[in-house]
Amino acid sequence: LYNDTVMDHFMNPRNVGELENPDGTGVYGSPVCGDMMQVQVKIEDDIIKDAKFKTFGCGSAIASSSMATEMIIGKPVEEALEITNKTIIDELGGLPPVKVHCSVLADHAIKSAIYDYAQKN
Amino acid sequence: LYNDTVMDHFMNPRNVGELENPDGTGVYGSPVCGDMMQVQVKIEDDIIKDAKFKTFGCGSAIASSSMATEMIIGKPVEEALEITNKTIIDELGGLPPVKVHCSVLADHAIKSAIYDYAQKN
Ligand code: FES
Repeated sequence: LYNDTVMDHFMNPRNVGELENPDGTGVYGSPVCGDMMQVQVKIEDDIIKDAKFKTFGCGSAIASSSMATEMIIGKPVEEALEITNKTIIDELGGLPPVKVHCSVLADHAIKSAIYDYAQKN
Repeated sequence: LYNDTVMDHFMNPRNVGELENPDGTGVYGSPVCGDMMQVQVKIEDDIIKDAKFKTFGCGSAIASSSMATEMIIGKPVEEALEITNKTIIDELGGLPPVKVHCSVLADHAIKSAIYDYAQKN
């Protein structure tokens, strides 16, 4: 059902936790399954220096957020905003169709964290 | 959002894994979120001697299955079949309404494992 990349990011998720002084925090709840995702970002000179996520969500949500945070760290904010749940799924090498909503959770939480930063600045 | 019992069963789930020679194996996929749950049971003299679960599901699914397997181990098959997702949620001290479908996953996978055993015997 799940490929090796998805399993790796599920079993050894990157960037789990919370940041001490986040510049932006985003929370998003899935209307499909009710799961919540929190993403926090550290931003300096418009570059995403660090990102962490926290969820009670399923394996696909964990794998998607692990991959998505890896994708945005080191990127300018503008480029990070171009990431969609489709590009997350592509990087993961695919997700079963029923689990697409889990990658949307990661996508939306990241965008909401960046908007939180933008509003504060 | 989640009480201490739910968090405990999520952080330290009981009975995770697979049995070596299961007497029954049940798999159930949630139509709500797409998550899957596998439950295996060891049955001797109509008593559930052991049970293990495996899931890619969310924290609520993990907590529900951890609690549900604890509830059936040591019970006669007939009593185990009386367990519903409502009794699992009661034992957990409650789940948010949006997460009720995750406890259904545990309930159905257990029943399907017992039916698998019954069909083989
Ligand atoms: S959201 Fe799928 S099992 Fe909980």
